[in-house]
Amino acid sequence: MDLRRMILGHFLVISLALNVGFLYRDYCKGNRHYQEFFSSKNECKNASVTLLEASPQPFSSSSSSSKAFDGIIDLDHGDPTMYEKYWQQMGDKTKVVINGWQFISYFSDVSRVCWFLEPEFANSIIRLHKLVGNAITEDRYIVVGTGSTQLFQALLYAVSPPNSSEPISVVSAAPFYSSYPLITDFLKSGLHKWAGDAYTFDIDKPYIELVTSPNNPDGFPREAVVNKKQGILIHDFAYYWPQYIPISSPADHDIMLFTVSKSTGHAGSRVGWALVKDIEIAKKMTEFIVLSTIGVSKDSQIRAAKILQVVSDSHQYKVDFKEGQAFFEHNYNHMARRWKQLRDAVNMSKLFSLPDFPSGSCTFSGRTFESQPGNYFWFSD
Amino acid sequence: MDLRRMILGHFLVISLALNVGFLYRDYCKGNRHYQEFFSSKNECKNASVTLLEASPQPFSSSSSSSKAFDGIIDLDHGDPTMYEKYWQQMGDKTKVVINGWQFISYFSDVSRVCWFLEPEFANSIIRLHKLVGNAITEDRYIVVGTGSTQLFQALLYAVSPPNSSEPISVVSAAPFYSSYPLITDFLKSGLHKWAGDAYTFDIDKPYIELVTSPNNPDGFPREAVVNKKQGILIHDFAYYWPQYIPISSPADHDIMLFTVSKSTGHAGSRVGWALVKDIEIAKKMTEFIVLSTIGVSKDSQIRAAKILQVVSDSHQYKVDFKEGQAFFEHNYNHMARRWKQLRDAVNMSKLFSLPDFPSGSCTFSGRTFESQPGNYFWFSD
Repeated sequence: MDLRRMILGHFLVISLALNVGFLYRDYCKGNRHYQEFFSSKNECKNASVTLLEASPQPFSSSSSSSKAFDGIIDLDHGDPTMYEKYWQQMGDKTKVVINGWQFISYFSDVSRVCWFLEPEFANSIIRLHKLVGNAITEDRYIVVGTGSTQLFQALLYAVSPPNSSEPISVVSAAPFYSSYPLITDFLKSGLHKWAGDAYTFDIDKPYIELVTSPNNPDGFPREAVVNKKQGILIHDFAYYWPQYIPISSPADHDIMLFTVSKSTGHAGSRVGWALVKDIEIAKKMTEFIVLSTIGVSKDSQIRAAKILQVVSDSHQYKVDFKEGQAFFEHNYNHMARRWKQLRDAVNMSKLFSLPDFPSGSCTFSGRTFESQPGNYFWFSD
Repeated sequence: MDLRRMILGHFLVISLALNVGFLYRDYCKGNRHYQEFFSSKNECKNASVTLLEASPQPFSSSSSSSKAFDGIIDLDHGDPTMYEKYWQQMGDKTKVVINGWQFISYFSDVSRVCWFLEPEFANSIIRLHKLVGNAITEDRYIVVGTGSTQLFQALLYAVSPPNSSEPISVVSAAPFYSSYPLITDFLKSGLHKWAGDAYTFDIDKPYIELVTSPNNPDGFPREAVVNKKQGILIHDFAYYWPQYIPISSPADHDIMLFTVSKSTGHAGSRVGWALVKDIEIAKKMTEFIVLSTIGVSKDSQIRAAKILQVVSDSHQYKVDFKEGQAFFEHNYNHMARRWKQLRDAVNMSKLFSLPDFPSGSCTFSGRTFESQPGNYFWFSD
């Protein structure tokens, strides 16, 4: 705990210097990594080393929303509030109005495998992927989920052999997203079990490999590492967007995950989507989501549809937007500034070092740049 | 299948005669029950005996929303569209406007155990329960879920012994909601297992009993039936609202579930809530929902808050509403009309009989009436 506070102290200095508000700290296979969520100056100015400890009073009268974070550094979850200002600048363009009689039904479109997917949202997903060129959407089924966390679990359910005598192994190359083991095992499922680092997996049995690219937490592009015959690959492309990493080509895998939390910053809406080639997998994912939550909030799908449309519009109809307001352009620049500040501060501190990321040419922007991954950073000390 | 179609044929005649659109049919312990969702004349006029079979085409261009149901009788899920017309009459009162920069954060109120619960929604829940008098909210924690389906699973996780050598038994008195066994067992959890009819459960070990009152599917009020020392009770009060059943007293149990799908008809929003006495249970439920979906759509919580407020307003500020627009009053009358039509049609058919429900005095409306349960009916033939 002393070490934790000491290290946190260093971070606090860095974070205050940078107006970097929220830190995420986690342990993954003995390494220490920090996931960081950039926030505004105002949110940070009163920051102190108060750990996020629930001091619950039933029905307490605390004030609402993210404003409640003033003075708290959350070490358990981060928050993509760096996007807030951009969306404020968009004004009414992303305003969504929902009347009391709308979206009452459980159903969205019964002609789809995923019958609770709003067609408007599906269309906005396809349009955006085509524009950005980061994923193939042709001959894929879209399955919507309550965030990609639910989709990940739907996939585990969908691809695990239902009647096997033992649970299928789930692996990912270290360092991996620290929630993967928890999510895989928290219900002690007989269908699947966490089997650790993909680099050390060497059993000739069916397995599921999670490939997160760029990777959370270390930010590097990833490919499958086990490469055995009986493997099922799940590609998590939450951060494969041109504000974070050069888009090299449209991803063309059997199972691909995306989420609005990371692409546009709307974490509170809890909406993600999977692009899936195999209809049987799409059907079983749908079955999981029905058993788990009977579908996904229509209100959030409608909102996410609008937001993805505005993202596309900001690039395709620039005349309707102010200079520099194209979404990926604006947020690429924003990330670049933050990374520069962070690198300068870390270099000054002489306590830690940051990795050098690969440079590449982005097919979307035409720019050649070093990755400036997501909303986390990985330190070595 | 022939029997199924034959019986369905009878129902179709009844349903067309009554303008009753959607039928829900399910099997539960060898009995046959039908869950029925009343819909409007327009939705029903082209109804045929087309089963709901997915004929999926990736990215098909089918039209949106519940309009897609014309001509389809859904035998798998019902839909609470009977409320649509009422909400249309409310006009702008329930309109919700959400801007692009709002509700970006994962967090709602970190001072609460359930930190993703929007305070506005919590307040509207407390206000409505106080008005209706159907549940005690004092000294309870509110946990919001993606519908009560997710809350049910969060509860199984929260109350199951985490390190037991065998899964805890989950029971409910037959006839029970047909999804309970599926939801309990679909992940082959080592924490809990479905153990069937509570009436036949006779093992001296810890168990979880689900008490749904009024019950889905048979509509009768329920109490726990096992009554052994080591039991944990989950009370599902989805239908304990005064349009369905006389409110006898405020429910005062340790764990109580509610949902907007059944109280106001907003199934598409996927929002429910639990009232929980024990902080440790509330914490573990929150943990489940974080691992499962990292919270619950803020957009839908904000919308649900508005809708519950309008429901309360319609009774507390009648001057702002037209005559007969008080929510529970209006929908009590609506249900009463439907049940009368249904009873008349069933009596005419001479094929089935409907049960007589207990009559009681409602502390909310002051009216004495027979239950007119939910959106299902149970036949004997």
